[in-house]
Amino acid sequence: MTRFALNSATTKHWPLPDLVAGCVRAGVDQVGLWREEVAAFGLDKAAALVSDAGLAVTSLCRGGFFADPGWEDDNRRAIDEAAALGAPVLVLVSGGLSEGSRDLDGARAHVGDAIGRLVPHAQAAGVKLAIEPLHPMFAADRCVVSTLGQALDLAAPHPVDAVGVVVDTYHLWWDDQVWAQIERAGRQRRIACFQVADWVTPLPAGVLLGRGLPGDGCVDNRRFRRAVDAAGYTGPVEVEVFSAEVWARPGDEVLDAALRGYRETVEG
Amino acid sequence: MTRFALNSATTKHWPLPDLVAGCVRAGVDQVGLWREEVAAFGLDKAAALVSDAGLAVTSLCRGGFFADPGWEDDNRRAIDEAAALGAPVLVLVSGGLSEGSRDLDGARAHVGDAIGRLVPHAQAAGVKLAIEPLHPMFAADRCVVSTLGQALDLAAPHPVDAVGVVVDTYHLWWDDQVWAQIERAGRQRRIACFQVADWVTPLPAGVLLGRGLPGDGCVDNRRFRRAVDAAGYTGPVEVEVFSAEVWARPGDEVLDAALRGYRETVEG
Repeated sequence: MTRFALNSATTKHWPLPDLVAGCVRAGVDQVGLWREEVAAFGLDKAAALVSDAGLAVTSLCRGGFFADPGWEDDNRRAIDEAAALGAPVLVLVSGGLSEGSRDLDGARAHVGDAIGRLVPHAQAAGVKLAIEPLHPMFAADRCVVSTLGQALDLAAPHPVDAVGVVVDTYHLWWDDQVWAQIERAGRQRRIACFQVADWVTPLPAGVLLGRGLPGDGCVDNRRFRRAVDAAGYTGPVEVEVFSAEVWARPGDEVLDAALRGYRETVEG
Repeated sequence: MTRFALNSATTKHWPLPDLVAGCVRAGVDQVGLWREEVAAFGLDKAAALVSDAGLAVTSLCRGGFFADPGWEDDNRRAIDEAAALGAPVLVLVSGGLSEGSRDLDGARAHVGDAIGRLVPHAQAAGVKLAIEPLHPMFAADRCVVSTLGQALDLAAPHPVDAVGVVVDTYHLWWDDQVWAQIERAGRQRRIACFQVADWVTPLPAGVLLGRGLPGDGCVDNRRFRRAVDAAGYTGPVEVEVFSAEVWARPGDEVLDAALRGYRETVEG
C-alpha cells in the first residue's frame, strides 16, 4: 500500500463525497481533513462517509490559534471532532501575535501553557496534539512557532502519547538545523504527522496560497521523507498544497498530479 | 550625534542630491547607498556630493548573488565602488538557488567559497564584506543565507577585518536563536552593519516591498538595538525599508517619519 494521503486542503473546492469517491478510484485510502469542510458537511455524516468508503483519516486540521478569545473551548471541540472522525492527530497552528504586541517570547510561552491545558482532554479522547511549526513568514499573523526545534521544545514537557509535532516540508525546507531536529524528533518519538508540498516563487499577496505540488518547486522532499523514515516514522505522507492555481483545477486531475509528484519526488 | 543613518532604499525615488540636502537639513550625517543609484548618478560625482555635504557613507548595497554568471567580476567592481565612496562595508545578498536546483546545502557552500575568493580584493580595498542573512521567505530566489548563525558560520574561516555580518531586524526578528547569535557575533567581532525596519502584514505579492518603518509593525527593534550594543557594536543604525507605500511619499516626510520611529522605538 502507498503511504500517500490526500490532505483535503489540496483539493479545496472538491465536495467531500466527490473527494472520497475520487480517492477510492485512485486507490488512495487515507485522507487528511479540515474542520470547516467537515462541519459544513456534518460531522457524523462525514465520519460515516469516509469510514464506509474504507478510508482512514490521517489528521484533522486545525486546532490552535491560541491568541484568539475562546481558544480553549474551540480546541476542545476540535479534539472531539478528531475523535469522532477517528483521526489520531489534531494539527495545531498556534496563532500569531496579539494585536499590537511585539512579545514573541511571551506568545510562544503562552502556546506551551495552552497546550498543557489541553493535554488531559486530548488523552481522554485518544487524540494526539501535533504542534506544527509554520514558515517564519507566518510568525506575526498565523503561527509564532517557526522551527521544528521550537515545536519540540514546546512538546517536551508533555507526554508522548498526547503531544507531537508536524514535519511539513513547505515550512521547514530552508532550515539547516531541520535534519538534526528530525533526528531529535524521532528519538523523542514526537513525529505525529508528515506533510509535503513544494516552494514556488514568486509568492502571491498574503503568501498563503502560493504552494506547489511536490516536484513543482525547489524543496528536496525526498530528503525529508528519507530523514523522517530514518528517524523511525512509518506513518502517512500527506500532500497538502494551498494554491489558488491548484484549486482552480478539477479534483481528479489534482489528485493524479499529487500522486505523480509523490511517486517521482517523494517516495523511493 | 545620532547613530541614525538613512539607507537610501527607504526613499527609493528621492534623487541623490535631494536626499543629501534633506539629510543635511534633518541633521542626519550618515547614509547607506545602493549601487544602481550611485551608478546612475555617476560614482565619482556621488562620492563628491556626499562627501562635500559632510555625510559619511555607512554601507554600500549590494554585492553577492553568487549564483549569477559573472558574479566574481561584479563583486570586485562592487568592492571598488564601496572604496571610492569611502563606505567601510559592502553588504552581500548572497543569491538564491540556481534554476531548477534543490541543493540548498550546495548553494550555501558555494557562497562560502565565493566570499573566500573575494577576500584578498576586499582587504586590499579596505572594504569589509558583510554577509546578510535574509528572511527565509527569500531563500529560494534571493538569499540562501537565512539565519545569523549561518552567516557567522560562513564568515568564520575569514579574517575579521575582511568579512562580517549584517544584523537586519526585518530578516531576523522571528528567530529565537538570534539573541545567542548576536552575542556570538559580538564575541567574534563580526557585526559590520545594523539595519532596522518593521514587519507588517499582509505581505504584498513577491514579498519584497512589504516592510514598515520602525514602529509600524511587530518587531522589537529596541531589543535588537540593545542586543547589538551589548555585543559591543557602536556603529550606525540604518533604517532600511522597502515599501511601495513608503516610496510613494515625499522623501522629506519619509525621513522625518523614519527619524521619529527610530527615536521612539529603537534608541533609548
